[in-house]
Amino acid sequence: MKTVTCTAPVNIAVIKYWGKRDTDLILPTNSSLSVTLSQDILHSKTTISAAKEFTQDRLWLNGIEEDITKNKRMHNCFRETRAIRQAMEAKAEAEGNPIEPLSTYHVHVCSENNFPTAAGLASSASGLAALVYTLSQLFELTISTSEVSRIARQGSGSACRSLFGGFVAWEMGEKEDGSDSLAVQVAPETHWPDLEALICVVSDAKKGTSSTAGMQSTIKTSTLMNERINQVVPARMEAMKKAILEKDFESFAELTMRDSNQFHAVCLDTYPPIFYMNDTSRAIIQLIHEYNASSPDGKLKAAYTYDAGPNAVIYAPKQNMKEIIQLIGHYFPSNKEPSEFFADHYQVLEKGVKLNEIEEFVPKTHTNFNSRVIPVQPAGSVSRLLHTKVDDGPRVLDVSESLLKEDGLPKRLA
Amino acid sequence: MKTVTCTAPVNIAVIKYWGKRDTDLILPTNSSLSVTLSQDILHSKTTISAAKEFTQDRLWLNGIEEDITKNKRMHNCFRETRAIRQAMEAKAEAEGNPIEPLSTYHVHVCSENNFPTAAGLASSASGLAALVYTLSQLFELTISTSEVSRIARQGSGSACRSLFGGFVAWEMGEKEDGSDSLAVQVAPETHWPDLEALICVVSDAKKGTSSTAGMQSTIKTSTLMNERINQVVPARMEAMKKAILEKDFESFAELTMRDSNQFHAVCLDTYPPIFYMNDTSRAIIQLIHEYNASSPDGKLKAAYTYDAGPNAVIYAPKQNMKEIIQLIGHYFPSNKEPSEFFADHYQVLEKGVKLNEIEEFVPKTHTNFNSRVIPVQPAGSVSRLLHTKVDDGPRVLDVSESLLKEDGLPKRLA
Repeated sequence: MKTVTCTAPVNIAVIKYWGKRDTDLILPTNSSLSVTLSQDILHSKTTISAAKEFTQDRLWLNGIEEDITKNKRMHNCFRETRAIRQAMEAKAEAEGNPIEPLSTYHVHVCSENNFPTAAGLASSASGLAALVYTLSQLFELTISTSEVSRIARQGSGSACRSLFGGFVAWEMGEKEDGSDSLAVQVAPETHWPDLEALICVVSDAKKGTSSTAGMQSTIKTSTLMNERINQVVPARMEAMKKAILEKDFESFAELTMRDSNQFHAVCLDTYPPIFYMNDTSRAIIQLIHEYNASSPDGKLKAAYTYDAGPNAVIYAPKQNMKEIIQLIGHYFPSNKEPSEFFADHYQVLEKGVKLNEIEEFVPKTHTNFNSRVIPVQPAGSVSRLLHTKVDDGPRVLDVSESLLKEDGLPKRLA
Repeated sequence: MKTVTCTAPVNIAVIKYWGKRDTDLILPTNSSLSVTLSQDILHSKTTISAAKEFTQDRLWLNGIEEDITKNKRMHNCFRETRAIRQAMEAKAEAEGNPIEPLSTYHVHVCSENNFPTAAGLASSASGLAALVYTLSQLFELTISTSEVSRIARQGSGSACRSLFGGFVAWEMGEKEDGSDSLAVQVAPETHWPDLEALICVVSDAKKGTSSTAGMQSTIKTSTLMNERINQVVPARMEAMKKAILEKDFESFAELTMRDSNQFHAVCLDTYPPIFYMNDTSRAIIQLIHEYNASSPDGKLKAAYTYDAGPNAVIYAPKQNMKEIIQLIGHYFPSNKEPSEFFADHYQVLEKGVKLNEIEEFVPKTHTNFNSRVIPVQPAGSVSRLLHTKVDDGPRVLDVSESLLKEDGLPKRLA
C-alpha cells in the first residue's frame, strides 16, 4: 500500500471568477487572480492510499463516507491523473524498468477541512486542490504544477489557483479542450511579505445561491456581464499583475474593491437577482471606505473583497492590521470569549489590548474619521475574525499525519 | 393678488433615470419611464400668490420659510416661467390688449407634502412638479404640458414625469440646450385600470447617498454604466412602451424588476459603491420572486421596483393585490395598530381580514410556494403599507384649498 498526505490552501480572488464557457470542462468566461492564504490557519488535508488489495475507490469527507461514483467532477480528476500515471507505467515498462502499476489500483481517499465550524468559507477550492495534488504525489507525476492545476480545474474551477502559493492567475485560455486553461504563479508568497489578510466571518441565516447555478444564471440573463467579461476583466488582469509585481498597494486595493463590487453587481443584474452580501457585509464596506477616506497621508490602507457569501476578506499592509482589527472589533462587537472570536495567529495585538473597549473608536492618526459612518452593530454580526497572511502552496506531510490507518480505513469517523 | 393652488403626484420609475449628461440643465444620460401614482394618497400641494405689493419672493416648505435665492434649480423654474409670461405680456401689450404684468410681481410660494411622516419617499419630483405646474397656471402660460415638463425638469429631473398622469416617458433628447428633453405621456391613467401599486415603506437607520451626488459618481466610476446607457436602456424603453400599450403584465413586470436591479447594480459598481437597498428590501425581492415562481398558471403576478432608498413599490394587477398585501403583512409583521400600518385606500381587504394572522402563510392557490423562502421578519421591518393606483397628473384646486391667507402669508407654520 502506498500512502501520501498533503494539505492545500484556501485562495481568495481579487479578480473574480464568475461564469463558465464550458460547464463540463470548467472553462471560465474570464481570467481571474487570487491570493493564497496561509495553511497554518485554513487548509484542506487529504490522505490517499493506493493498494492492489482495495476492491473499490472509497472516499471519506470530514469523517463521512461519500459515494465517489456520484461525483462526476472528482471522477474527472481521478481519470486524468490515472491516465498520466498509466502512460508513465507503459513507458517505464517499454524501457525495461517497470514501475508499480498504481494506475490500476483502487484508492481510498480521506479528506478534512480544518475550517472553524460554520465559518461559511468555501472549501471546494482547497478540497479539490488537496485531492489532485495528493494524487499527483501518489502517482509521482512528472508534470508541472500548472499541469496539475489544469486537472484540479476540472474538479472545481477555482481549485486550480490553490496549487500555488503567493499570487496566482487562472488564465482562461482559448482552446476548446481546455488545455491552456490553467493557473500560473504571478509572484511567490515571499514577494510581498508586507501584505496580510483578515477574514471577517459574517453571520447569516440565509442560504445563498450555489455558485455553480448562480454563475450560469448570470451568463444567461445579465445584460452587463458581456461588458465585464470582454472589456473590464482583461484590462483589470493586466493592471492587477502590475500592481502585485510592483507591490503597489494603492492600485491593488482599488482594483480589488472594484472587482468585488462588480462581481456582486452582475449578480444583482442577474434575473432573478442573486444576493450574497447582507447588511453586515455592506457595513464593513462602508467602514473600510471611511477608514481609507480619512487616511492621514491620503493613501488607501485596506481593501475588502467578498466571494459568493457574506464574509469579508480584508487585505492590508501588515502595519495597518492592528488598527483594522480594533476597528472591526469596535464596530462589530463579539458576543463570545475573545479567544473564540479572534484568532490572532500573528500576534498583532499586544497582550492586554482588548477589542470593543473604546466608546467611540477613531483610529488614532485619522483625525477626519467620521465615527458615525455606521452605528456599532448588534453583537455577533461578525462571528469570528481570522488574521492570516499570504503563504505557500500545497504541502506534502509526514506519514505520521496520515488520515488513514494502515488498513486503509480512516483514523476518525464523524 | 392672484393666487393658484395645485397638487402634483408622485411618480415611480419602471425604467430608471440615473445619470446626467448636463448637471446645470439636468439632461439625463438615458431616457426613463414612470407610472404616476394617485394623489389621493401621496401628493405635493403648492399655493402661489403674486401681488404687486410683495417686496420679495418668499418660500415656505412644509411650514418652514426657506431662502428661495439659495435654490438655484428652483430659481431656474421661476426664471423660465416668468420669461414666457413676460413674452405673453409684451405680445398682449403690442396687440393693444395688455394683461396683468404678473411677471414683474414677486411671488409667495407655500408648499406641503401629505406624505406620512418619515415615509422616506422622494418628494422632490412631486414638489417641483407642483411648483412649476402652479406657476404655469398662475401665469396662464399657453404652452403644452410637455413644455411645462421641460421647465420642471430643470428643477428636479424626474419632476418632469409628474406633469402627466398614467404612464410617462422622459425622452432624454439630443440637443445641447435641452429643448427636446421632456416628458410625454405614453398612455393615460385610464388605459390600464387593472394595474395597481403597493408601497412598502422600509425602516432604515442609514442615510443614503443623495441621488444628485450618487448618479454623477456612477457616471464617473462605473465601468458597466456605458453599456446600460448605450445598449440596455434604449432597447428597454421600446419594450416597456410596447408592454404598456398592450397591457402585457408579463413583459411589464420582468422589465420593471430587471431595470430596478440593474440600477442598483450600477450603484454597486460605483466606486466607492452606493447602497440603497437593505436586507428588508432584499427579502421583499426574494418573496416576490417566490410568489411569481409558484404562480399556478406560470404567469408573473407582481413586480417590485426600488428607487434611491430601501422602500419597495410593488406593481400588480388588481386581482392579485389582496393576496400580496396578506403576503407582505405575514412576512413583515407590523408593530403598530393596523390603521397606522396599512392604508387600505381601495378596500382590498374585506372587513375583518387581518394581516399577520396566518402561522405559515401560503397564497391559497400557490401549491408550490416555498413558505420558508425567507423567515418571518422582525416586527416593524416594513413600517407602512400604502395601497394605491395609477392616476392623473396635476390638479388645480379650489381657492378654499389655498395654503396662503389673503395677506399672502401661510395659514399654517411648522
